[in-house]
Amino acid sequence: MSKTPTTKLCRYTNDQVFVHNVDLCKDLIGKISFTEMIFFHLMDRRPRVAETAMLDAILVTLMEHGLTPSAITTRMIALSSPEAPQAAVAAGLLAVGSQFIGTIEDSARLLQALVAGKGSLEEQARETVMRYRQEKRLLPGFGHHLHRPDDPRTPVILAVAREHGLAGRHVDALMILGKTVDEAAGRHITINVTGAIGAILSDMEIPVDIIRGIAVISRAAGLVGHIKEERESPAARFIWELAEEHVHHAGDVADTGA
Amino acid sequence: MSKTPTTKLCRYTNDQVFVHNVDLCKDLIGKISFTEMIFFHLMDRRPRVAETAMLDAILVTLMEHGLTPSAITTRMIALSSPEAPQAAVAAGLLAVGSQFIGTIEDSARLLQALVAGKGSLEEQARETVMRYRQEKRLLPGFGHHLHRPDDPRTPVILAVAREHGLAGRHVDALMILGKTVDEAAGRHITINVTGAIGAILSDMEIPVDIIRGIAVISRAAGLVGHIKEERESPAARFIWELAEEHVHHAGDVADTGA
Amino acid sequence: MSKTPTTKLCRYTNDQVFVHNVDLCKDLIGKISFTEMIFFHLMDRRPRVAETAMLDAILVTLMEHGLTPSAITTRMIALSSPEAPQAAVAAGLLAVGSQFIGTIEDSARLLQALVAGKGSLEEQARETVMRYRQEKRLLPGFGHHLHRPDDPRTPVILAVAREHGLAGRHVDALMILGKTVDEAAGRHITINVTGAIGAILSDMEIPVDIIRGIAVISRAAGLVGHIKEERESPAARFIWELAEEHVHHAGDVADTGA
Amino acid sequence: MSKTPTTKLCRYTNDQVFVHNVDLCKDLIGKISFTEMIFFHLMDRRPRVAETAMLDAILVTLMEHGLTPSAITTRMIALSSPEAPQAAVAAGLLAVGSQFIGTIEDSARLLQALVAGKGSLEEQARETVMRYRQEKRLLPGFGHHLHRPDDPRTPVILAVAREHGLAGRHVDALMILGKTVDEAAGRHITINVTGAIGAILSDMEIPVDIIRGIAVISRAAGLVGHIKEERESPAARFIWELAEEHVHHAGDVADTGA
Repeated sequence: MSKTPTTKLCRYTNDQVFVHNVDLCKDLIGKISFTEMIFFHLMDRRPRVAETAMLDAILVTLMEHGLTPSAITTRMIALSSPEAPQAAVAAGLLAVGSQFIGTIEDSARLLQALVAGKGSLEEQARETVMRYRQEKRLLPGFGHHLHRPDDPRTPVILAVAREHGLAGRHVDALMILGKTVDEAAGRHITINVTGAIGAILSDMEIPVDIIRGIAVISRAAGLVGHIKEERESPAARFIWELAEEHVHHAGDVADTGA
Repeated sequence: MSKTPTTKLCRYTNDQVFVHNVDLCKDLIGKISFTEMIFFHLMDRRPRVAETAMLDAILVTLMEHGLTPSAITTRMIALSSPEAPQAAVAAGLLAVGSQFIGTIEDSARLLQALVAGKGSLEEQARETVMRYRQEKRLLPGFGHHLHRPDDPRTPVILAVAREHGLAGRHVDALMILGKTVDEAAGRHITINVTGAIGAILSDMEIPVDIIRGIAVISRAAGLVGHIKEERESPAARFIWELAEEHVHHAGDVADTGA
Repeated sequence: MSKTPTTKLCRYTNDQVFVHNVDLCKDLIGKISFTEMIFFHLMDRRPRVAETAMLDAILVTLMEHGLTPSAITTRMIALSSPEAPQAAVAAGLLAVGSQFIGTIEDSARLLQALVAGKGSLEEQARETVMRYRQEKRLLPGFGHHLHRPDDPRTPVILAVAREHGLAGRHVDALMILGKTVDEAAGRHITINVTGAIGAILSDMEIPVDIIRGIAVISRAAGLVGHIKEERESPAARFIWELAEEHVHHAGDVADTGA
Repeated sequence: MSKTPTTKLCRYTNDQVFVHNVDLCKDLIGKISFTEMIFFHLMDRRPRVAETAMLDAILVTLMEHGLTPSAITTRMIALSSPEAPQAAVAAGLLAVGSQFIGTIEDSARLLQALVAGKGSLEEQARETVMRYRQEKRLLPGFGHHLHRPDDPRTPVILAVAREHGLAGRHVDALMILGKTVDEAAGRHITINVTGAIGAILSDMEIPVDIIRGIAVISRAAGLVGHIKEERESPAARFIWELAEEHVHHAGDVADTGA
C-alpha cells in the first residue's frame, strides 16, 4: 500500500475552514481578490502586487476569442443539456489541448529548456529552430492562423510584464527565438500570445505542470459567457444546421445522379 | 433553417480583438482585473466597485473545500491522464451538479420565486417550508453535513454583501425563510453558504441560468490547485487503494468461508 | 461515517478476475458477445436469446445519426486535442442530455408512471396528454424535427420487440398514448425512436436510472467513428469557419456603417 | 476557407436513415449485432465472423476491473450529479489516458513501428528494450501492478486471436519483445492485457488513432454498471469519507501540538 499522503490545501472543523493554513472566513473572504486567491492557492504564498497585476492581465487576455472550438462545444452541450451548465463548460475546456491555447504549456517547456540549457541563448535558439525546421514541426508560440503578421495581444502582455519587472530570462529567450525564427524563415513570423504567456508564466515560476491550468481557469469564465448568450440568443442549432447543410454527404442524390 | 443568430461576445480583425465591443488590447488587458472582466463578460457592462468586491468574495469562498468529490475526481484523472490537465479539471467540474455547490442555483430559483410571488415573504416562506416538509424534500440552501450548527462562511459572505449595499430582497427572503425553517423544525438549521450566495447573486441580478457557472469558474481554480498538489504529493493512488481495500467485495473468500 | 458498502461487480486476485462472481478469463472472454456481457453486467444475470437480440437492435439503432450536436462536439475536441480521443468521446457524450437521445429516460419514466397508475391506460393517457398540452410541454417520445410524419426507426424497433415477445405493457401504453396524442392534436404526431426504446427498455425491466446509459454506450461507439473520419477527412475546422462566417457579429463594420 | 469536407457516416431523409450508405431500418436494425455494427462503422465494411468474435472478446475483456480510477470517478459524479448519468460516464472515460487502459494505443504504436522497421524483429526488439531501459521508461504492454507474475487475461485473449487466425506479425513482435524483456530483466515480466490487445488490434488493421476508442466503448459499458450499483448500494460517499479521514491534513491539531 502507498505511503499516507499529506494535503496542505484545506482542512476544516465544524466552524472553521482553513485554506493553506489560513482561516478562510477571517482572513480571506472579503480580504483578497479572486486573482490573489488563485495565486495563493497555486503557489502557497501571497502574491506581490506585481504578480497579481500580471496574473490578472493573463487571465483577462485568454478568456474570450469568439466562436472557437471550445465555445462551439460549450454551446452544443448547452443546447443538448441545458439543465447541466457545468457539463457545457467541462466539454468546452476539453478543447484546451495541444492545438490551441494549451500550447502555452509547450511554449513554456521549450523556453525553460533553452534557459536551462548549455550555451548562449542565441546558439540554442539557432539549434532549436533548425531542428524544428528539419522535423517540419511547428514551433510552439509562433504563428497564428488569423493574427498576421502580428498577434496584437503579444506586445501588450509583454509590456505589462516589463512594467511590473516580471520579464526575465524566459522572455529574453522568446525574443531571441523570435529573431532566429524570422532570419531562418526569411520573413516575419508572429510571436503569438500563447508564446508570450508561456514565457511570462515561466518567469513567474508557475510550475509547468499547471501552466495549462491557468488557461483553463480563464477560459472557464469565457465559456460561461457563451452559455449566457446561448440562452438569450441561441446559435448552436444554427451551427448544427450549417454543418448538416454545408458538409457534403457522400451518397446523396446529387452524387448518384451522375 | 433557423434565423441567423448574433453574437456580441467577441469579434476580431487581423490586428484587433474586441470583447463586447471594447478593444481587448487597448482597453482591457492590464487595465481591469480578472474579476472585473468576468463581470463585464457575463453582464455586458462594467461592474461598480461594490460589485467587483462582492464577486471577488464569492469566488474566493467557493474555490476550495478539501478532498470533495470534485477534488477526488480531478485527482483520479490527473493520475490516469497526467498529459491532459484540462481533462482533470473538466471531470471535477462535472461534480458541480444538483447535490453540492450546484445548489446555489436551486437556492436562487427558490428565493426568486418567493420575491416574485404574491403575498408577504413571511406567508410564502411558511407555505414553502410546509410544502417541502410534506414532500420530504431538502430545502436548498439549508443544512450542511459538516458545518453544524452553523456554516461559518454564511455570516461572512452576508456581511460583505451588506457592507457593499448589495443585500436586497433575496437576502431578506433567505433570512425570513431561515427563521421559518427553524420554527418548523423546532431547532436551528444552518443557512449554508450556497443559500447565502444564491441570495446575493440574485440580488446582484446575475441571470439564474449562469449562477451555477459562477461556482464552476471558482472551482476550476480550486481544482488546478489539486492537480498541482497531486503532482508534488500524490494522493489519488492511495485513495484508490483505500477504496479497493475498504469497500467490501461480495464473493471474497471471507464470504464463502461461512 | 457511512456503513461499509459492498460491490458485486468485480474482484480479483493475482491470477484471476471475477465479474459478478464469474471467472472472466475462463467463462466470459471468447464465450459471450459484448452485448451479452453488457446485459450481464447491468442486470446481474445472463440474457435470454431474445433479450440479447433486442439489446443488439437498440444499440444498433442509437449509434449514429450524422452531424448531431454530439458528433460536432466530438469533432471539435478531436481537432483541438487529437492526443486525447477519450476526451473527444467524453465531450460528445455530454450531449446525451434532456433534449436529444437522453429523452429515452423521460419517455420510460412517463410510461412507467402510466403502467403503475390507477385507472385504465386510456384514461391516464387522456389525462396525461391534456396536462402536457395545458402546460405547453413536449410529451417525451413524440415528434421529431426531421422525421415527419413518421420516424422510420420506430416501427422497425417495435417489430423486433414483438417478434421476440418483449413488447409488453409499456409498449401498449405507448401505443395508446400515441392514439390519444393524435386525437388531441387533430393530426398524426410521430412516435419517435426514443419513445419506442423507452417503452421497450421498460418492458425489459432495465432500471430507469440507467436507461440513458444504454444510449451512452451506443453513442460512444458512434462517436469513435466520427473521430476516425475526422482524422481521415477533417470537418471540424470547416464547421468552425462556417460558424465564424455565418453567425452575425454585432459591431462589425457593416453594423456601424449606418 | 477550408475545402468542403465529405462525411460518409450517415445521411438521412424524412423517412430513411443511411449509415455508410446502408439503410439502417431495412438492413441493419435487427439484422446485425452491436459488435458487427461497431466494426462496420469503424472500418466501413462488414466484419468476417472471426473479426466479430475477436472484437467481442476484446470488448468483453476491457469492460470491468473493479474500483479503478475510472470507476471511482464515475461514482463521484453519480453521487454529485445523479440527474446526469451521461456526465458520470464521460468523467470516468477521461481516465482512459496514458497510464491505464489507454496504453493499448502506445503498445500498438510500438509494435507497428517494430513490424514496419528495418532488420529482424529480434534485432529491433533488442534495440528497443535497450533504449527504454537507458531512458528508464516503462515499455508499454509490459508489467502490471497487480497481476504478477502474469496477467491472466493475456493468454486467453491471445488464444482467441490464434483460434480465429487473427494473430499475425504484431502478435509475433509482441512475443519476441516479451522474450527480450525477460532476458534483459533477468526475470519474467508479464505481457499485460493492453499489450496483447494492442497487438491484436494492429493485426486486425484497426487504425491506431482509434485503438484507444475501442477501450473507451468497452469501458463506457462498464461504467454504466457502476452507476447502477452506486444507485442500489452507494459507495462514493464512503470513499470520500475514507479520503478525508486517511489522507493526512497538514496543520491539523496533531501537527501543531508538538
